[in-house]
Amino acid sequence: MMNIHSVKGQKIAAGERTQEVDHPHSLVAQFGADQPLPLDCGIELSPFQIAYQTYGTLNADKSNAILVCHALTMDQHIANVHPITGKPGGWLTLVGPGKPIDTDRYFVICSNVIGGCMGSTGPASINPATGKAWGLDFPVITIPDMVRAQAMLIDRFGIDKLFCVVGGSMGGMQVLQWSVAFPERVFSALAIACATRHSAQNIAFHELGRQAVMADPDWQHGRYFEHGCFPHRGLAVARMAAHITYLSDAALHRKFGRKMQDRELPTFSFDADFQVESYLRYQGSSFVERFDANSYLYLTRAMDYFDIAADHDGVLAAAFRGTQTRFCVVSFTSDWLFPTSESRAIVHALNAGGARVSFAEIVTDKGHDAFLLDEPEFIDIARAFLQSAGTARGLGKAEH
Amino acid sequence: MMNIHSVKGQKIAAGERTQEVDHPHSLVAQFGADQPLPLDCGIELSPFQIAYQTYGTLNADKSNAILVCHALTMDQHIANVHPITGKPGGWLTLVGPGKPIDTDRYFVICSNVIGGCMGSTGPASINPATGKAWGLDFPVITIPDMVRAQAMLIDRFGIDKLFCVVGGSMGGMQVLQWSVAFPERVFSALAIACATRHSAQNIAFHELGRQAVMADPDWQHGRYFEHGCFPHRGLAVARMAAHITYLSDAALHRKFGRKMQDRELPTFSFDADFQVESYLRYQGSSFVERFDANSYLYLTRAMDYFDIAADHDGVLAAAFRGTQTRFCVVSFTSDWLFPTSESRAIVHALNAGGARVSFAEIVTDKGHDAFLLDEPEFIDIARAFLQSAGTARGLGKAEH
Repeated sequence: MMNIHSVKGQKIAAGERTQEVDHPHSLVAQFGADQPLPLDCGIELSPFQIAYQTYGTLNADKSNAILVCHALTMDQHIANVHPITGKPGGWLTLVGPGKPIDTDRYFVICSNVIGGCMGSTGPASINPATGKAWGLDFPVITIPDMVRAQAMLIDRFGIDKLFCVVGGSMGGMQVLQWSVAFPERVFSALAIACATRHSAQNIAFHELGRQAVMADPDWQHGRYFEHGCFPHRGLAVARMAAHITYLSDAALHRKFGRKMQDRELPTFSFDADFQVESYLRYQGSSFVERFDANSYLYLTRAMDYFDIAADHDGVLAAAFRGTQTRFCVVSFTSDWLFPTSESRAIVHALNAGGARVSFAEIVTDKGHDAFLLDEPEFIDIARAFLQSAGTARGLGKAEH
Repeated sequence: MMNIHSVKGQKIAAGERTQEVDHPHSLVAQFGADQPLPLDCGIELSPFQIAYQTYGTLNADKSNAILVCHALTMDQHIANVHPITGKPGGWLTLVGPGKPIDTDRYFVICSNVIGGCMGSTGPASINPATGKAWGLDFPVITIPDMVRAQAMLIDRFGIDKLFCVVGGSMGGMQVLQWSVAFPERVFSALAIACATRHSAQNIAFHELGRQAVMADPDWQHGRYFEHGCFPHRGLAVARMAAHITYLSDAALHRKFGRKMQDRELPTFSFDADFQVESYLRYQGSSFVERFDANSYLYLTRAMDYFDIAADHDGVLAAAFRGTQTRFCVVSFTSDWLFPTSESRAIVHALNAGGARVSFAEIVTDKGHDAFLLDEPEFIDIARAFLQSAGTARGLGKAEH
C-alpha cells in the first residue's frame, strides 16, 4: 500500500524560468489511476501526488499523529530549513522538540495542499494529457478537496484517527473542514485565526490580488511557463496587498511609523522614502521567488469558495451536530482579516452543535500574522490544549 | 489682475489615447512667469494654471466665500454634472441650494489640485521645456503646495479671508494645512475624515497602488502618452485596492455578503462569481476612463508626505497655537482609513493650541466613503456648524 518516494529534481516546465519542484527533503505520496481525487467541481483528479514532511515518530497504535494544515502561502516545511528559501521552518514557534506540537511526543505530518506549488499536484504540475503545465486547465479546487486529499495521505499511514488537526488562516479552514467531513477521524482540533466562510472584504482583497496577477502581460493567460516568462510584477503587487492585510495598523505603526529609509528628508521622488515602502517591496519581490502565480489564483479561490454553512442548508451548527471532537478556537484582537467575530461564530455553532470547545482571544497588536509569531499567551494556550487532549487520548509523556 | 479663461479643448498628449483636459464648464486661472508657485521640493513651478468651479455669488465685502478642497480622486466638479463622466456633481449631499454649503448663500470655490488631471497643471500637462507631457519630470508636490496654489487663486478673487475651508480625506488635509499656513485667512474650517499625517498603513496602501501602476508595462516609466498607450490595468488594480479601503467590512457585508453574480452555484472558474468581485472590477475599469495614472502617483505621494507636526519640530499643537479659526472635526466610526483616533489627535492638538473646536464622531457602517454619502447626522452637523459660523461672521440669511 505504501507508495512514498522522494522527489528528485523534477522540472515541470520549459522556458527561461522553470518552476522547480525539487524537494530533496520532502516525501511524496503518489496516487495512481486507481485512486483518483474526487473534486467538488465534479472532476476526478488522477494521477496526483502529495508532497509532505513528517517530524517525530508514529507510535505503535498510531494514536499520536498531528496533522498541521498550512496557510495560503506557507507549505509543508514548517519545522525544517526551507529547501528553496534557506530560511528556518515556517512554524517553529509551535512545532518542534519541547514546543506545544512536541515532535518528541507526537508524529507530525504537514502536506502541501492540492493546488499548491511545493511538490503537490497543482496548476504548475504537468498535465498528463498535454505534457505541459496545467495552467488554468487545472480544475478549480476547494478547501474540502484539499482535506479529501489529506485524508488519502493519512490512509497511507494507516492512521484511522488523528490525535489533532491544527492550522491557522487557510489552515484553520482545513481544520474546520476536517472536523465536519471526517468527524470520527479527528480527536481534537485547533483552529486559529480563521472562519467558516470568507467575508466579502476578504473576497475583495483576494480578487484584487488575482486581478493584479492577471493584469501582468507576462501572466500570458496562465501559460507563462510555455512563454518562458513569469508574472513577477503582478504577483508581487498581489503579495504586497495581502501582506498589508496580515499586519495590523498598530503593528505597522510600531514597526515603521513614518520612519524614513536611510535618510531624514523626503527625496521628492517615487523612491521608497519610507521604511514601510521598502519593506513592502521586499515582501513582494521575495515572494515571487518561491511561489507559483497560478497557485496563488487557485488557493485564494479555494478560500473564497469556503462556506461550511452553505454546504449544510445554511445552518452552521448542523455541520457540527453530535461531534465528539475537542475543539480549541483562537483569535487575535488586532486581526482584521479574520476578526474575533468570525471565531465567535465558530464557537457559537460548535456550542449549538453540542461540541466541546474552548475559545481564547489573544490580546496583541500583531494582526493576523500573530499566529505565526512568538505570541506567548497563544503558545501557552496551544500547549495546554494539546496536553489536556493528550491525556484524554491516553498519550503519555515524551518517551525520551 | 484677473486672468481667468475657459479652457477650450486643450489636448495635452499625442498617441492613440489622448488625455483630454477639455473643460467647457471649468474656469481656469493662469499664472505666468511673474507668478511662479514655490514648491516644497525647492522648485518654482511656472507657468501653471488652476482649473476651478464656482457656485453662488461673492458678496460685496467678499466675506461669504467657501473653499471646498477635493479628495484624492475627486475634482472641482462637486455640484455640477461632470463634463467627462456625465455623472452628477461629486458632493451634492453637502453643496447646492439649501444644502449645508448653501450656494444661495455662499460663494463656493472648488479648484482642481496642483498635480491633478482635471485642468490644473499636473504630470499630464505639457512641459513647456520639452513640448511633451511632464510625466515623472513633473516636480513632486505636497499638500502645502496644493494649498499655496489655492491661496494664489483666492488672491485673484480679492478674497482676504475665506469664510470657511471644507474638505474630506485629502481635502481635509488641505483644510488643516490652510489653517496652519494661512490662519488669518480662514474664518472657519470643517475637516472631515482626515488626519494631520498619513499613517504607515495608509502609506502602505498607497505604495501598493503606485507599484501596481508602475508594474504595468504600458506605464512606460511615466511616458505612456508618447508611446500611445495607457496603464489601464495597473491603474485599475490600484483603484480596486484603494476602493476596498474606502468601504467598511460591514458595508461590504451588507451590500454584497457572499452573494453570487447572476447565479446560485460557483462556476469553478476565475470569473466574477461573487457580486463583490464584479463591483470591484467595475470600480477599477470605470476609474481609468477619467483619471491620469501619473496624477495618481503624485497625489498619493503628496498625502504620504503630509505631516503637520514634522513641519513644527514634531509638536502638533505648536502648528495651531493662537489660531482664531473656528474648527469642526468629523470622523466616522467605521472609517478604518482615517479612524476616529486620527480625528481625536487633531482635536487634542487644537485644544492644546487654544483653538475653538467642535468634534463629532458619526455612527455609521459606511466606512471612509461616508463623507460623500447622504449621512443625515453628518449633514446636520455640517449645517449647524456653518450656520453658527455664518452668524459669527455676520452673514445674513440667503438674500432670495
